[in-house]
Amino acid sequence: MRLASFSLDGSDCVGVEKHDGSLAIIDGVASMLELICMGNTGFAKTQAALSAGKTVRDEDITWHPPVTRPGKICGVAMNNSASNERKISAPDHPAFFLKPASCLVGHGGAIRIRTYFGSAHPEPELAVVIGKKTKDIDAADAMDSIFGYTICNDITGNGMRAEDMFHYWALYADPDNPGELLRREQHLSYAARYKGTDTFGCLGPMLVTADEIPDPDDLAVSCSVGGEVVAEDSTRYYNYKVVELVSYISQFMTLEPGDIISCGTAFKPSRGRKSIHSANFQKVAGPVSVSIEGLGTLVNEVIVEDRDIGQWRLN
Amino acid sequence: MRLASFSLDGSDCVGVEKHDGSLAIIDGVASMLELICMGNTGFAKTQAALSAGKTVRDEDITWHPPVTRPGKICGVAMNNSASNERKISAPDHPAFFLKPASCLVGHGGAIRIRTYFGSAHPEPELAVVIGKKTKDIDAADAMDSIFGYTICNDITGNGMRAEDMFHYWALYADPDNPGELLRREQHLSYAARYKGTDTFGCLGPMLVTADEIPDPDDLAVSCSVGGEVVAEDSTRYYNYKVVELVSYISQFMTLEPGDIISCGTAFKPSRGRKSIHSANFQKVAGPVSVSIEGLGTLVNEVIVEDRDIGQWRLN
Repeated sequence: MRLASFSLDGSDCVGVEKHDGSLAIIDGVASMLELICMGNTGFAKTQAALSAGKTVRDEDITWHPPVTRPGKICGVAMNNSASNERKISAPDHPAFFLKPASCLVGHGGAIRIRTYFGSAHPEPELAVVIGKKTKDIDAADAMDSIFGYTICNDITGNGMRAEDMFHYWALYADPDNPGELLRREQHLSYAARYKGTDTFGCLGPMLVTADEIPDPDDLAVSCSVGGEVVAEDSTRYYNYKVVELVSYISQFMTLEPGDIISCGTAFKPSRGRKSIHSANFQKVAGPVSVSIEGLGTLVNEVIVEDRDIGQWRLN
Repeated sequence: MRLASFSLDGSDCVGVEKHDGSLAIIDGVASMLELICMGNTGFAKTQAALSAGKTVRDEDITWHPPVTRPGKICGVAMNNSASNERKISAPDHPAFFLKPASCLVGHGGAIRIRTYFGSAHPEPELAVVIGKKTKDIDAADAMDSIFGYTICNDITGNGMRAEDMFHYWALYADPDNPGELLRREQHLSYAARYKGTDTFGCLGPMLVTADEIPDPDDLAVSCSVGGEVVAEDSTRYYNYKVVELVSYISQFMTLEPGDIISCGTAFKPSRGRKSIHSANFQKVAGPVSVSIEGLGTLVNEVIVEDRDIGQWRLN
């Protein structure tokens, strides 16, 4: 099933795509999260909508992110084998960051880039939507925790990324004498601003249920900006498979229905073509679109706002 | 007012502390977030509870985090002047990370540390609770956006922190020739695991409304582990004042009612005493308590679980 969240005449709706491509409203469901948690009841309501639901016209709706308020959005860092040759040292497991629900926009929404953000670029990614509470799941069993998939354009402010770094002397307890502290030279960086700024999470258009995607680890991905292709890749080049990511994260965090895991950037440029890294939204006009095989195409315009940061210091 | 979220006989409640120290249930309020959003209606309901609300006994309730499901939790990095001399290079603005709502535990809840987490330590912090939707607020006006304050023990897995680092060649567009890419040696690290693992966010016990805390930038903070003091500090040593943090974050992210900003670690050890960095939960028994002037004392036990990570790789 291909599900969507949207508003129509000011009301929030959940809908399902019919076989003719039109979108029908699922009655009695207030949000996608509610539908996910309903289980078989939700399935029955969706079936009813497929056969007799009221259809809406594309031009009458405003798309929302398929899950409007996920409890958490985990983004997996550097999960593309194309980035491996650039790693000098790296963990031997997935590393990830969080994006806040407040950064999400749906299909057709605007990515708003302010002058003071510095450079920012798109990152086309497969996103997993969790279907049930999941903790300590083995990879072999993790597919059961996946409700479906959608597309995430994980907008990244690489200008802010380069600013929010610390090179410092970290304190650690001396292993031989835990009462004493040792200093260790360390680099830390913080992702909240460069990954979580408003409109930096485009999600959608649809949530496609897992049964429709037999192999999430072999989906073609492409991204274009202003009509020019900047990435042509596949989820087959992820270092870690989808179920491995679900399993790994669940060893640390409880995954909950509606949680999102954005699996990492599929960014491989074809030889001689532009890349996502050269698609700086400060200079390159949109719209930006991301297509994933079986999931559709997520399109967002880019609006550059010429403004300075406000008076955040006292005095 | 001193507000709390808790469960009683399996029901979630919001309460207010009476003048005699007992806790009274606020009727007709399902959650703290609802109370925050109610404005004057919530104030009237709280006043009614103060004069005639049913009181509960401490031993009958289970404390929840004051806000059980904040939309986002921002944690400010290295905001203590005591860390400044250890910085080799650092941004000249606040840097921050996100913690997920799923990591929260309330007063009296357990911090669960597994063997494979490596070392982890407490970080005592003042936490701001946002009262209204806030974007692009100047620091001079930001106090209006603060509903109140609570205590955050921002548990930090410094073992995982040291693992989730990348030293790599980042790609940036060549400023002189944006179609070409330059490689720049860079260090990135990712905080989701070491800051967001389940039970790594202790919050509470109460949410104290802003009117009761005339100067949040001058509050004594202390932390003890197993009865031994590991930090004695004050919010006066934060590099950035509370309203500056609210203002700064709002230039990037929309702050929403119930959102939390944990303002940074108050970790200064007294001379000759232990420090938070030597309080490795793998080796030092709890409980851990954090006290902040005017806000109370947040106490959490520490449970070490001897277990290996599950089978997160296929094959």
